Amino acid sequence: MIAEILSTGDEIRSGATVDTNSAYIAQKLELAGMEVVRHTCVGDDMAALVSVLEEIGHRAQTAVVTGGLGPTVDDLTAAAAARAAGVELVLDPAALDAVRSYFESRGRTMSRSNEKQAFFPAGAEPLMNPMGTAPGFCCQIDRCFFFFLPGVPAEMRRMLSEIVLPRLEIIQGKDKATALSRTITTFGLTESATGERLAGCEAMFPGVKLGFRVKFPEIHVKLYVRGQDERSLAATLQTATEWVTAQLGEKVLCVDGSSIEKVVGRLLRQQGATVAIAESCTGGLISDWLTNVPGSSDYFLFSGVTYSNDAKTQILAVSPDTLKQYGAVSEETVKEMAAGARRIAGATYGLATSGIAGPDGGTAEKPVGTVCIGLATPDVLTGHRYYFPFGHRLRNKEIFAASALDVLRRALMKSFLDRHAF
Amino acid sequence: MIAEILSTGDEIRSGATVDTNSAYIAQKLELAGMEVVRHTCVGDDMAALVSVLEEIGHRAQTAVVTGGLGPTVDDLTAAAAARAAGVELVLDPAALDAVRSYFESRGRTMSRSNEKQAFFPAGAEPLMNPMGTAPGFCCQIDRCFFFFLPGVPAEMRRMLSEIVLPRLEIIQGKDKATALSRTITTFGLTESATGERLAGCEAMFPGVKLGFRVKFPEIHVKLYVRGQDERSLAATLQTATEWVTAQLGEKVLCVDGSSIEKVVGRLLRQQGATVAIAESCTGGLISDWLTNVPGSSDYFLFSGVTYSNDAKTQILAVSPDTLKQYGAVSEETVKEMAAGARRIAGATYGLATSGIAGPDGGTAEKPVGTVCIGLATPDVLTGHRYYFPFGHRLRNKEIFAASALDVLRRALMKSFLDRHAF
Repeated sequence: MIAEILSTGDEIRSGATVDTNSAYIAQKLELAGMEVVRHTCVGDDMAALVSVLEEIGHRAQTAVVTGGLGPTVDDLTAAAAARAAGVELVLDPAALDAVRSYFESRGRTMSRSNEKQAFFPAGAEPLMNPMGTAPGFCCQIDRCFFFFLPGVPAEMRRMLSEIVLPRLEIIQGKDKATALSRTITTFGLTESATGERLAGCEAMFPGVKLGFRVKFPEIHVKLYVRGQDERSLAATLQTATEWVTAQLGEKVLCVDGSSIEKVVGRLLRQQGATVAIAESCTGGLISDWLTNVPGSSDYFLFSGVTYSNDAKTQILAVSPDTLKQYGAVSEETVKEMAAGARRIAGATYGLATSGIAGPDGGTAEKPVGTVCIGLATPDVLTGHRYYFPFGHRLRNKEIFAASALDVLRRALMKSFLDRHAF
Repeated sequence: MIAEILSTGDEIRSGATVDTNSAYIAQKLELAGMEVVRHTCVGDDMAALVSVLEEIGHRAQTAVVTGGLGPTVDDLTAAAAARAAGVELVLDPAALDAVRSYFESRGRTMSRSNEKQAFFPAGAEPLMNPMGTAPGFCCQIDRCFFFFLPGVPAEMRRMLSEIVLPRLEIIQGKDKATALSRTITTFGLTESATGERLAGCEAMFPGVKLGFRVKFPEIHVKLYVRGQDERSLAATLQTATEWVTAQLGEKVLCVDGSSIEKVVGRLLRQQGATVAIAESCTGGLISDWLTNVPGSSDYFLFSGVTYSNDAKTQILAVSPDTLKQYGAVSEETVKEMAAGARRIAGATYGLATSGIAGPDGGTAEKPVGTVCIGLATPDVLTGHRYYFPFGHRLRNKEIFAASALDVLRRALMKSFLDRHAF
């Protein structure tokens, strides 16, 4: 089935925002057995929208459109779809009720402009949006069946998986190809180094397609297979996953696409362990990540974001002599920070960072990109220094935070293996 | 000058790679005064490439194409351009020498497949690539002047700025249009409420285009103007900005597109003040945001991410009686948390959050989405409760964090006004 993707909005057209929706939709449609042949983006302009909808209507069998469903004057998608289909815009009372009760359920009153969101091309079917006020809709334009979804990624993703993909499944019927995929989360190699270690994968496993997605600082390795026989596809995928895992060794965090904070959280929970953090250069990012995982209060006890030296001595009981002799960014200081966080929170593990995220504060001996990571376990206290050449404050915070979590992950793995050794 | 952008390649088409090139090129072209009306992406397929090149050749005045210039069989761009232009592919001896010397200068031998990279549509002009083996080229197809660049971002970016933009400057000559824009950061209204308050803006300021971008939980209002006379455009933009600011009042954080943490940081710095945070439900996100701003160590002293009650009492000296009587999520507890953070860090301001981010932990009285925000200033100690109906853990953390920073921002504004009152 030939599919196209259209993203709309001046922020995408002008380049103010990178369009990540189209790649996401393309992947999902391809996995669902469709052939995505083209993506297009146009701005919030009625003539441009109408003409691109007519073109796609003529070329494709199905299309997913994102954006332009909001309540403001620059949201033109429904009106453009009506023109391209040659029909009127009509009010859908059920959709109006849904928008109104979205507001009422949250104790708010629907504003007049939101009424606009309940108008659709005549004959279109509204698609409820469980996460926001903008309903989507689907309708036929020329030869093509269109799905119109909001541009907000979280809303689009949920409606794509809950509404669009199941319908396409039915439309495709039994001619549908099966596609399976596996996402392997890795940390610690560049994208090109990861690619080099996996060279020859596609030749070794015919039918397997290899892809890489940089979710900085993680690299996600994707394996896809497509065909008719689901059981043999699954077996091929499994063998290829094992080969990739063997090639990348300890750089593999998991084979289900989870993020590092989720992997660390699972290991802590498995072992009934808890953690406390002392963050300097990472500024709260490690705790933010850890607490993004639902249920993290079971193992995450405390983080002290001790940016100033005073905070380090007063809250974490780092010795002023250590700070004076070795500096805040040193193996010695992060060891004391980790031990302090562990002690005051009564945690199984203490993890600490101190480094130079930049843009200022670097020296010849400790340039921007230097980080020291300390770990206090029930048995040992360690501190190590690392250097990353990214030269960008936010990237540095991210690579520092992920590196610290990876230090903890390896300790947790080791503890697990030690306890389960023969 | 009407411009289009085309990205080519199966990795983009299938969604394995997010296309960041097109947004980058769009921004640069718009800043150079061009009007980018459409982006398209097609895969490594001869028929698709030829037909999209013909379409763009018919619609646009100039176009930038990326990808498909490499040495492998799936690199089809030059051949497709020749077909679309109705000419032959011919060998360019100078380009062949350039590719050969690229290899020789690195002590390597050019492989046969690289010879392909010196073939261009007859009449095209090769564009040297200073960073890689793939030369680009430019040529006319139908009414449009095309620039073909490599897909590797670093190579594309350098060739765009060193070759394409200077040529477009000359081609545009004195017809060149100027485009100006202004981004107004707002917080505290929904997108639709923001749109309603600004209804009539485009009618009142002819030539001004109004756009909205949800950068959750901020709403960014964008004003664009385009024309020939830069001075009058700037004046129009300024008047429109003042009108928008008046309509939105205290919901406006700034008129330069800065994020809330940057605005708060500027106010703290202006007043020589410092801040300490006590975070429960926001889990470190407030401190992460604040420390994303370079130089934040001047005013950010400490954050205690006190997830457990023990951490609240031991580190922030919250009274166990308060926790017992009112609960962790209460006005009373966040007041003590804010006061505790302020005291132990010796900061001018103490800011605290405690709430229920979900998905679990809600009750009838304190449902998921409830947050209490405490603020300790040199003069007063306040605690307030808010409720947000987003029902999603990460969104709740973000709206809680932004609300807390907004409480601090208003206090800083008030303190500034008080001190500068007549």
